[in-house]
Amino acid sequence: MSSFNQENCVSCGHHCTSCQAAFADDKVKDECGVFGIYAPGVDVAQICYFALYALQHRGQESTGIATFDGDDFYVEKDSGLVSEIFDIENLHRLKGDIALAHCRYGGRNKKISNDNIINALPMSFNYYHGEIALSYNGALVNKDALWQQLTENGAVFQTESDCEIIASLLAKHSKEALVDSFAKTMGELKGAYALVAMMKDKLIGVRDPHGIRPLTIGKLGEHYLLSSESCAFDAVGAETIRDVRPGEIVVIDKDGLHTYQIFDEQPNFCIFEHVYIARPDSVFDGQSVSEVRRRMGQILAEEAKIDADIVIPVPDSGTACALGYAEGSGLPFRMGLLKNRYIGRTFIQPTQEMRERSVHIKLNPIRATLEGQRVIMVDDSVVRGTTSKQIVEMVRNAGAKEVHLVLSCPPVKFGCPYGIDTASGQLIAVTHTVEQISEYIGADSVHFLSQEGMLRATGLKPEDFCVACFDGNYIVDPEGK
Amino acid sequence: MSSFNQENCVSCGHHCTSCQAAFADDKVKDECGVFGIYAPGVDVAQICYFALYALQHRGQESTGIATFDGDDFYVEKDSGLVSEIFDIENLHRLKGDIALAHCRYGGRNKKISNDNIINALPMSFNYYHGEIALSYNGALVNKDALWQQLTENGAVFQTESDCEIIASLLAKHSKEALVDSFAKTMGELKGAYALVAMMKDKLIGVRDPHGIRPLTIGKLGEHYLLSSESCAFDAVGAETIRDVRPGEIVVIDKDGLHTYQIFDEQPNFCIFEHVYIARPDSVFDGQSVSEVRRRMGQILAEEAKIDADIVIPVPDSGTACALGYAEGSGLPFRMGLLKNRYIGRTFIQPTQEMRERSVHIKLNPIRATLEGQRVIMVDDSVVRGTTSKQIVEMVRNAGAKEVHLVLSCPPVKFGCPYGIDTASGQLIAVTHTVEQISEYIGADSVHFLSQEGMLRATGLKPEDFCVACFDGNYIVDPEGK
Amino acid sequence: MSSFNQENCVSCGHHCTSCQAAFADDKVKDECGVFGIYAPGVDVAQICYFALYALQHRGQESTGIATFDGDDFYVEKDSGLVSEIFDIENLHRLKGDIALAHCRYGGRNKKISNDNIINALPMSFNYYHGEIALSYNGALVNKDALWQQLTENGAVFQTESDCEIIASLLAKHSKEALVDSFAKTMGELKGAYALVAMMKDKLIGVRDPHGIRPLTIGKLGEHYLLSSESCAFDAVGAETIRDVRPGEIVVIDKDGLHTYQIFDEQPNFCIFEHVYIARPDSVFDGQSVSEVRRRMGQILAEEAKIDADIVIPVPDSGTACALGYAEGSGLPFRMGLLKNRYIGRTFIQPTQEMRERSVHIKLNPIRATLEGQRVIMVDDSVVRGTTSKQIVEMVRNAGAKEVHLVLSCPPVKFGCPYGIDTASGQLIAVTHTVEQISEYIGADSVHFLSQEGMLRATGLKPEDFCVACFDGNYIVDPEGK
Amino acid sequence: MSSFNQENCVSCGHHCTSCQAAFADDKVKDECGVFGIYAPGVDVAQICYFALYALQHRGQESTGIATFDGDDFYVEKDSGLVSEIFDIENLHRLKGDIALAHCRYGGRNKKISNDNIINALPMSFNYYHGEIALSYNGALVNKDALWQQLTENGAVFQTESDCEIIASLLAKHSKEALVDSFAKTMGELKGAYALVAMMKDKLIGVRDPHGIRPLTIGKLGEHYLLSSESCAFDAVGAETIRDVRPGEIVVIDKDGLHTYQIFDEQPNFCIFEHVYIARPDSVFDGQSVSEVRRRMGQILAEEAKIDADIVIPVPDSGTACALGYAEGSGLPFRMGLLKNRYIGRTFIQPTQEMRERSVHIKLNPIRATLEGQRVIMVDDSVVRGTTSKQIVEMVRNAGAKEVHLVLSCPPVKFGCPYGIDTASGQLIAVTHTVEQISEYIGADSVHFLSQEGMLRATGLKPEDFCVACFDGNYIVDPEGK
Repeated sequence: MSSFNQENCVSCGHHCTSCQAAFADDKVKDECGVFGIYAPGVDVAQICYFALYALQHRGQESTGIATFDGDDFYVEKDSGLVSEIFDIENLHRLKGDIALAHCRYGGRNKKISNDNIINALPMSFNYYHGEIALSYNGALVNKDALWQQLTENGAVFQTESDCEIIASLLAKHSKEALVDSFAKTMGELKGAYALVAMMKDKLIGVRDPHGIRPLTIGKLGEHYLLSSESCAFDAVGAETIRDVRPGEIVVIDKDGLHTYQIFDEQPNFCIFEHVYIARPDSVFDGQSVSEVRRRMGQILAEEAKIDADIVIPVPDSGTACALGYAEGSGLPFRMGLLKNRYIGRTFIQPTQEMRERSVHIKLNPIRATLEGQRVIMVDDSVVRGTTSKQIVEMVRNAGAKEVHLVLSCPPVKFGCPYGIDTASGQLIAVTHTVEQISEYIGADSVHFLSQEGMLRATGLKPEDFCVACFDGNYIVDPEGK
Repeated sequence: MSSFNQENCVSCGHHCTSCQAAFADDKVKDECGVFGIYAPGVDVAQICYFALYALQHRGQESTGIATFDGDDFYVEKDSGLVSEIFDIENLHRLKGDIALAHCRYGGRNKKISNDNIINALPMSFNYYHGEIALSYNGALVNKDALWQQLTENGAVFQTESDCEIIASLLAKHSKEALVDSFAKTMGELKGAYALVAMMKDKLIGVRDPHGIRPLTIGKLGEHYLLSSESCAFDAVGAETIRDVRPGEIVVIDKDGLHTYQIFDEQPNFCIFEHVYIARPDSVFDGQSVSEVRRRMGQILAEEAKIDADIVIPVPDSGTACALGYAEGSGLPFRMGLLKNRYIGRTFIQPTQEMRERSVHIKLNPIRATLEGQRVIMVDDSVVRGTTSKQIVEMVRNAGAKEVHLVLSCPPVKFGCPYGIDTASGQLIAVTHTVEQISEYIGADSVHFLSQEGMLRATGLKPEDFCVACFDGNYIVDPEGK
Repeated sequence: MSSFNQENCVSCGHHCTSCQAAFADDKVKDECGVFGIYAPGVDVAQICYFALYALQHRGQESTGIATFDGDDFYVEKDSGLVSEIFDIENLHRLKGDIALAHCRYGGRNKKISNDNIINALPMSFNYYHGEIALSYNGALVNKDALWQQLTENGAVFQTESDCEIIASLLAKHSKEALVDSFAKTMGELKGAYALVAMMKDKLIGVRDPHGIRPLTIGKLGEHYLLSSESCAFDAVGAETIRDVRPGEIVVIDKDGLHTYQIFDEQPNFCIFEHVYIARPDSVFDGQSVSEVRRRMGQILAEEAKIDADIVIPVPDSGTACALGYAEGSGLPFRMGLLKNRYIGRTFIQPTQEMRERSVHIKLNPIRATLEGQRVIMVDDSVVRGTTSKQIVEMVRNAGAKEVHLVLSCPPVKFGCPYGIDTASGQLIAVTHTVEQISEYIGADSVHFLSQEGMLRATGLKPEDFCVACFDGNYIVDPEGK
Repeated sequence: MSSFNQENCVSCGHHCTSCQAAFADDKVKDECGVFGIYAPGVDVAQICYFALYALQHRGQESTGIATFDGDDFYVEKDSGLVSEIFDIENLHRLKGDIALAHCRYGGRNKKISNDNIINALPMSFNYYHGEIALSYNGALVNKDALWQQLTENGAVFQTESDCEIIASLLAKHSKEALVDSFAKTMGELKGAYALVAMMKDKLIGVRDPHGIRPLTIGKLGEHYLLSSESCAFDAVGAETIRDVRPGEIVVIDKDGLHTYQIFDEQPNFCIFEHVYIARPDSVFDGQSVSEVRRRMGQILAEEAKIDADIVIPVPDSGTACALGYAEGSGLPFRMGLLKNRYIGRTFIQPTQEMRERSVHIKLNPIRATLEGQRVIMVDDSVVRGTTSKQIVEMVRNAGAKEVHLVLSCPPVKFGCPYGIDTASGQLIAVTHTVEQISEYIGADSVHFLSQEGMLRATGLKPEDFCVACFDGNYIVDPEGK
């Protein structure tokens, strides 16, 4: 008799079970969601708690909240989901009216055994100006050089987090006025970042000069908030004001919001936020992610005309685009695949013989919908292609006569050094043509949205986006030079 | 400063947090999913584990697996979700090639402090014929009378479960041949039930004379399985054979499947399985639940013609019907509400002032989709109306010009004594007309599918269903007389 | 490099770690502690909680408390120690002014995977007279015959506990008046038992006709309590009144304590309670266990005169006796072995090469005390001899010139069918003479207290004790005939 | 009806339960145990695990192990006891043949919510020379000045631990050769410390110039170990070699042990290690703690002659001294108080009315031993006096005619700035004479061992000890000047 298979999960790092992200392993991944609020007189811990639920899709490995109550500093963070980590007891310990929150995905390559706890954010530091806490999303391309420079001058690091580098630079410039020390620190950082810093009486938001990673400003009554995505504002009943501008520092204190435009470079927002990462109900630069995705589907329907019977999404990421495709093509939209909502972080991998079945646990085709149909299946992107291959086979086994795979972006051919994990060594599009991908996946045809079409769907200027993962034109030198 | 609100959850019974079901409190609820397998030579624990993921929507309070390995009997069950209870360690303890599995929702009124553990299934019993374990979905209407009769004859009960009554009856008839003892027991039971019993070398499936609760037969290679729904067969790679017939006993042993038709009454399958309870990818009597729901939407579009711009579902239960409505009406289908997938069982209730916001955590409207639109919103049913009211208001606040609520069944006016929890004392349709419901909910109009339309959508004979919750015509006397 | 050793613990049954009892595996073991209180108007859950701490030495595998609050019945029980299972939350759930408590050791041979939870006490039953809960210590020698008789009459059992047999007999006699039903049940039971039953408005204490297992009556203000040992009364500030008499039923209700002497046989109290099982601060029949043990040491000093330098106990069970021996012999008493107080239930077994060291973790010799000394080491009894062998070697390695082992009882040669686990198949005294035991253990000499001396130390009549484990004269036929 | 009392525990910081240390709140406390091993080719994690059991009495709030395996660094640490934190899974993750271990008590005044996790040791740092981990016991009196100096030069701190100050100083001197950087760091530190540092290929032990805190060298085969106390060497089968000398640095690498005597000042070992803190089976400077305590008792018997009947210890700390007193006085030694071994870290405080009883749960007097006796009760020291008062009353209530309290050290009158928590603001001896203490406690008399007698009992030179807590002569300026 066989027994269960124990694999190191690519995401949670444990050796015996695989986490929620396991099925999503064949997906591009963002690495963090950040949130901050300063609301004098308001108990902000629960606001952070609700905001984290809305940002959870940006990172499921660890999460944390840090607060100040005037006198003391509190932090609760751990490995796990918001729903696993926070309870009434620890939320009550988080006293104060100023707070940071964070959720994190730590990447695929981990060296230390308790990475998710050691590197969990927010991180707090005590330096020349007192206590400071940081919540951060991004990646520094010159991290090694900064590490070298700082340790030569006596710096000590306890984690692998970019936050410690940033804290050490802030400390290096700490004899300057506060905003200046942040500006000088930005001058030394190369890469993509959205940073929220909390001090005793202020919240500071910083976005990298190109605005690669998102950071948005919200308002709850007269109080300001910062978040990676606007959906967190909806979750706490706040209003979305505007995005923090590329190269901008915003300071939120008792007098309101102050802005300092430090850099004035070409904006290059990460297009993958629109393609896959962001929640459909978020808005960037006035553009609804959901609507952008629907327009991607409409443009795909023009670009890739397929003679078929029905359009189905791969839930949930392909849904908005599939609706757009159905509209554009005039074909009926159907839910041909059912996604199981109960797969938790500790889903046990089946034995080899149960492998194929396990796909049906997470995603099950509806035979009555698919049988005898020529199916257009819409997904966001293809990374390694392994999951697409399984799903195509599953749909075919459920009776589909044809399966055409349609994607809402071009082939991903280049790794991302700006905080997105694209499993770069395994990108199928690096080594396979579209026809070869189609053959590998077992589809009747595969169609990628054109880069031009993808950018057009955003409703914004094409040059305002970073599309390096598609064309290799890196905004900032990936080697940090 | 405010603090968190602690309420007794209607579902999990804990005093400080509310479970996943809290938001679904305004929903009709089923009370169990059952599963059984006999596969000589196969390690069946993991098959049960995967099947339970597929049946989890039928009960989220406790779950369990019981196995036999020829010599010994093993059981692992606890309060919680499949993903919370089972790990490699306890699955390995479940040795054997014959097994039962179960997931359970225990109803709203609980007297004892650890109901979810004490009453968790499968339950195992030792009686005259040796070890027997039971997995059960249903409700006995003559439970009190049977309790009275049995205790007068010296029976002892340890739980509030119907299973113990059934075990005691089997023991009472234990001098008979095994199938006869089951048949005599059926003769004493009144109500709705789907029962799977496991003995050392056989699995026994029993469905009540009217077939009110579902029970389906599957096949994995040459091995037979039993399940509340066919989606569990898909999850384990098994084939769906047929439903157990109303009043039928099936015995699965080393020689295969044996059938005994004990009663031959009018079938009355629970229509609510099609309306809401079952998973869309399940099939009953050859009818796909997903397709039945889509037809309900099409018939609704005929019955309730509304001058509007878009059709949106209340996810996830309204999705299939909304698609049908969109098709029938020719209006565009849109995903105007986003459901948060990370709300766990321990979601902490917000303070009063955060109440309205908390709706947005679980469900968030997409303004870009809804703004300026006349919206038709499709849901399955209205129970108390409180949730519908919140969602209508949310959609309106997101800019919808009009909100029309459309339901895929008639008004629920009568409590269900057959294993469905309809929160009967609080049914809005008992005290309100359709107009009054519309006013209470704040919709521009409310439309219920007709009983005739609902039954027509099933593609089966209308008299083959129990529709007592709509018309009060109880198949079996609810008082057990 | 080596790795950790995973063994099935004889006590906790888990496969990967060994519990607190592992080191005590070479010890005779009792199987339960019982407690009950009826105190109208008093919140009794916390009294039970404190009492359980005092009774914990009688069973460390599972523990539970059950209460009634007039309307409802509450029970909280689980596998683990009192300190692991109870917290403010579940104690608060245990409402009411009448309660039972229990701690349990389940024996070495377990068939089912979750024995500690399934068989945990108190158990509650619903029968003809309503709700009844049972807390029980003992063993029925005619269990199989009763099981046979009861199942033939339609009884159903869910556990392996004697409690269910007793409940079923009470149900069988339930048409009788309550005390009569207990008396008739006693008439059918053979073996040793101390039983506390709780009904809505009364507590019932029952001790077997020979009084083999202990049961004591206490008083807290005007309220009565029952306990296996009087140390639990000290822990809750109650007064010790008297032992329940062999063959007596006591009923505690709002009118106080009522007594019914059902049997009048020769008392035969288990001598091993005095030798090892009971806590030194408990009192049985007016005799302090601590003082009985000290007298055992004094008598040993007369019986076994040894030319040596110091007397040391094997802590903690040998301490009182060693003090007596030192007094009797005039030799100095020393603490030559230090017991580690932090070994928890999940102590991980060392690898083979670390085995010898692991003895030093739990017990460490003090070289400065032992070096160059001729040591008399006092312990309670020898079961398998393996632990004694290790300790003698350890003491010798710490520099002792001679090591003489002195025991406070005769050689254990017979298994106990009355609720004490003596690991009967492995008793070294069955196959070895005293000289051979000494040789096996590696001691310079081994001395056992005589049966006469042991009984004299009790200060009571010798015929009032059961000494079957030493002489094989079983009070009640071990086969239940 | 009353309910449970929820207090912030002085030790574990939780708000609802009090930890194991709660009853010991009226005790002086040490703040850490350290351990290190370098054993090429040996899997050292389990050795650390066993060593931690032996050091657990030095700190029960958090514990951790850090290892190197040549390539990577691993750390597992958490709030809780060794038995709660380590299991086979996380011990297996701790790969490597060089390791540090630590157990910690964090003091009574905590500012941050998760102090026990944030400040848990070992701490690891990455600096100019690569990875370094630190395990530390002690207190720096010039911490604030060092903090000021270091942050002015751009240092950043994440915890409140002295370890970070030390790491920052090592980084400041990192351009020096390794031993020189440690020597220069020692030159800037003022206070008491025992430090074990681990780098990729070496272990470094450092003891403060006066040797206030203990650090001992052991040998396991050819491998060297470092530990706060020698009892950890016994636990792992290692030999005790010698104490690290005050002001000495030892470096353990593949070539063995190298010594560097950096400072050559008057040794001043903490006398309280002998009085209370250390385990009786440990040895400092060749003197057995157990024997030192016994001699303290003998000297006490000379100094404080009392006309009484029996001598009893307050277990466990008073046992060795009580034995010495009994020997010196010729009075019989008895175990008159029984200590409950099952009180865990989460013992729930009783309600006010149960307060007195709760003393009996943790410690119960044996009436048969005490009744009618004039009792000499031996304890180590009196801090606040509250616990002594309770115990005296308890002994008197158990029938003692007289109760004389005898202590193995002089009155504690001064706070300790060197890593011992004496609850300095509440020392009864600061405000009360011996007579007043006796009156407060309710004893017939109270007797303290003289400072001269205490030092004589050590068998070493009196000037080689720090006795500042008794006479206020601080070795190192407590203000750090």
